[in-house]
Amino acid sequence: MIKIAIIGSGNVAQHLITVFQKTATVKLVQVFARKKETLSTLVPEALVTSDLSGLKEADLYIIAVSDDAISDIAAQLNFTNKLIVHTSGSSGMEVLGNQNRKGVFYPLQTFSKTKAVDFKTVPLCLECENEADYQLLEAVANAISDKVYRISSEQRQSLHVAAVFSCNFVNHLYQIGDEICRENNIPFEILFPLIQETADKIKTLSPQAAQTGPAIRRDQKTIERHLAFLKDNPERTEIYQLLTESIQKNND
Amino acid sequence: MIKIAIIGSGNVAQHLITVFQKTATVKLVQVFARKKETLSTLVPEALVTSDLSGLKEADLYIIAVSDDAISDIAAQLNFTNKLIVHTSGSSGMEVLGNQNRKGVFYPLQTFSKTKAVDFKTVPLCLECENEADYQLLEAVANAISDKVYRISSEQRQSLHVAAVFSCNFVNHLYQIGDEICRENNIPFEILFPLIQETADKIKTLSPQAAQTGPAIRRDQKTIERHLAFLKDNPERTEIYQLLTESIQKNND
Repeated sequence: MIKIAIIGSGNVAQHLITVFQKTATVKLVQVFARKKETLSTLVPEALVTSDLSGLKEADLYIIAVSDDAISDIAAQLNFTNKLIVHTSGSSGMEVLGNQNRKGVFYPLQTFSKTKAVDFKTVPLCLECENEADYQLLEAVANAISDKVYRISSEQRQSLHVAAVFSCNFVNHLYQIGDEICRENNIPFEILFPLIQETADKIKTLSPQAAQTGPAIRRDQKTIERHLAFLKDNPERTEIYQLLTESIQKNND
Repeated sequence: MIKIAIIGSGNVAQHLITVFQKTATVKLVQVFARKKETLSTLVPEALVTSDLSGLKEADLYIIAVSDDAISDIAAQLNFTNKLIVHTSGSSGMEVLGNQNRKGVFYPLQTFSKTKAVDFKTVPLCLECENEADYQLLEAVANAISDKVYRISSEQRQSLHVAAVFSCNFVNHLYQIGDEICRENNIPFEILFPLIQETADKIKTLSPQAAQTGPAIRRDQKTIERHLAFLKDNPERTEIYQLLTESIQKNND
């Protein structure tokens, strides 16, 4: 059994606590939470400590706290030469300092407290300073997910940018779609099948091959009609023009 | 039995031909195709004509041709005062001329020839000049889909713009995500669960409530790191800045 401790009590920490308690090959020996009661429904009280200096012996310490708090927490650990990892997509490995052996255990998914997640499908992006530690981290990751990737700090930074485009920005375009529908008394749900099909298609076609619509068809008449429709909203107009041009430039 | 004829042999026509042959309440009495052989695997030869002036009697004629061809086809029909509809999202009802009673039967989905579509889930946007015709059109739509909406020409125009934002532009952001991944030797599939979750979330939360990421958190440190990463690509930089600003402005 690989012994792990989880430091943190936020969204990611809570999901990890839940899933690691169900595995056969990994044993959760302790959880650190500033306020013990936060975790009262998730984990037996005996497993929780609010004393960072009294952490039990473990093979791996997972620091699942906000980006800004990682280096503080790492500096407060009163042991050396253990394997510690953080769970952040946008922080380098170096924020963990030099007191311990370092790595990253980054689950690439949006977690909300109220929604259960099937961890088997969550991509886990792993990185370690040395290969022996990587093997251990990989065994821990394989215990909860079928999607384990070796991703360097540099790659992880680019992945985080790609995720902003493919998810946060995508969601913002959904918001604009929703607003246009509501302004015209159309239920937004009318777009759900099309949104779903758009997300599905790219699993079998490249996004470039999957593109449709007036921009890629260079259907100038329709584009002009759309711009006329948007004319009172400079922000939507700018987004429409910029993305239309970008589609046309990148698909010549 | 409601008798319908379909005029056209492209993507949308082929999907309609396939699905209407399976219904109990609607009878497909004829299909017009300029080249009869296009439909040889889809429909019995006796049902196909390439003579527009010899169309059989039907309760409804569905003109499923490209936007530019609709008015030509409508003008060539050698009958009057029948119910004719087109299937276009971006054309008004008036392109059908005044020779016949008019309507629109717009399936809001992307169709590709090679991929089967479960028509039950395809939103059908209907419009008619008069109520009796609307009832008939609605009965035809209900025979193939569970998602039937009454949508005016004006609403349909706004819906088309909303679909460009929520689908074509979304797909373009997927393309940028794909490119960033490939440039950094990361398999794009690593983003699929996040893309799927982003598309799923808005079925239960508004896109506004579902937003996450550095823009909405006003995490300026991360935004600056991302812009530094993108600095050699002015186009991606502009998209990143514009969408980040738009997220922040619209979620104050």
